[in-house]
Amino acid sequence: MALDRALVIGILLFNNMTSLDFAGPGTYLEYLGVIGQKVEIHTIGEKVGPLQPSNLTPMYASVSMDNAPRAWDILIVPGGLGATPFVQNQELVDYVRGAAENATDVLTVCTGGRIMGATGLLDGKNATTNKMEFSKIASEYPAVNWIEHARWVVEGKYWTSSGVSAGLDLGHAYVAAKFGEEAATKIQRTLEYVANKDPSNDPFAPQLL
Amino acid sequence: MALDRALVIGILLFNNMTSLDFAGPGTYLEYLGVIGQKVEIHTIGEKVGPLQPSNLTPMYASVSMDNAPRAWDILIVPGGLGATPFVQNQELVDYVRGAAENATDVLTVCTGGRIMGATGLLDGKNATTNKMEFSKIASEYPAVNWIEHARWVVEGKYWTSSGVSAGLDLGHAYVAAKFGEEAATKIQRTLEYVANKDPSNDPFAPQLL
Repeated sequence: MALDRALVIGILLFNNMTSLDFAGPGTYLEYLGVIGQKVEIHTIGEKVGPLQPSNLTPMYASVSMDNAPRAWDILIVPGGLGATPFVQNQELVDYVRGAAENATDVLTVCTGGRIMGATGLLDGKNATTNKMEFSKIASEYPAVNWIEHARWVVEGKYWTSSGVSAGLDLGHAYVAAKFGEEAATKIQRTLEYVANKDPSNDPFAPQLL
Repeated sequence: MALDRALVIGILLFNNMTSLDFAGPGTYLEYLGVIGQKVEIHTIGEKVGPLQPSNLTPMYASVSMDNAPRAWDILIVPGGLGATPFVQNQELVDYVRGAAENATDVLTVCTGGRIMGATGLLDGKNATTNKMEFSKIASEYPAVNWIEHARWVVEGKYWTSSGVSAGLDLGHAYVAAKFGEEAATKIQRTLEYVANKDPSNDPFAPQLL
């Protein structure tokens, strides 16, 4: 099921993001080499270079929003505390809207759902997001059909997941859907990860109640 | 249990590392803010700047081995395919040996165990590592008491874990031991992570047999 060419993957970066948000699906994709699928991973910032400021793990943007590839095979939109200031900047939201429209698939983790909510592209669609911020995000973007009880939700090309570690299960489900269950299982064993393969198995939804 | 000052954390970087290896324990530590513990996270490369080459997710070293802080509170040693060429470079291994000797605690994930094995500091100690590479690593560093069936192993200041995602469970156990179970539980809920809290629950050990 591998493509003849490298999969072109873009990971959105911003200050105060959560590193596991991108490393969850990102690592599943990094390991596509086990089935012979090459990947080319770019990190997208306002400009090329180290993120300034970077309050948590230092990060590096390999492409800027101005010079990034125009059509990602996969766009990963992570979350973290920095997602809130991010959506207050219209230029940044406009970039994500354009990149997501042109991407083949868009994967969000955690409050990356807030960022995608701000683009308007999820309006009228099913989606999920981080549980602690769920009610707030749902009230901010009421045109989205936010699903409370879901580890992840697939609607067309939009794959949205719950908080942080849900991105690993999203990565598993995405690889299984696109490259086959055998590929996902191979990667899971390599990562020594006990994947949650049932999107309705969402142990953290009850904290919403 | 929070310290009055920021915890100084160093994450070792190298080409062809696995991003989840550092993001597992790294994200648990990033989230210590939920109990008021400040953290200061540095990434350590041969030199400051973007990793060249960087075959997978682009990474940025915020400090070089020459100018890094001399005494990390926590040194994270991740693994990945790049761990093998890493240990063939004596200067790099010498840096890790010195940094680990001076660190308060050292956390390894996956084939980060190979790197720590190469330093000799685990000789005569219990440790574990990635299961697919287990036999090879055990034969390379026979003076270490490698534990096959363990999600993670603690011996003094050396906290070693199994493959990739085991780093999340290591992160949970480390935070619980140092900052209390309540802190670890708070972070786990924030990360929506179902932590494996039993080091003997190691579902991937049987593949060794």
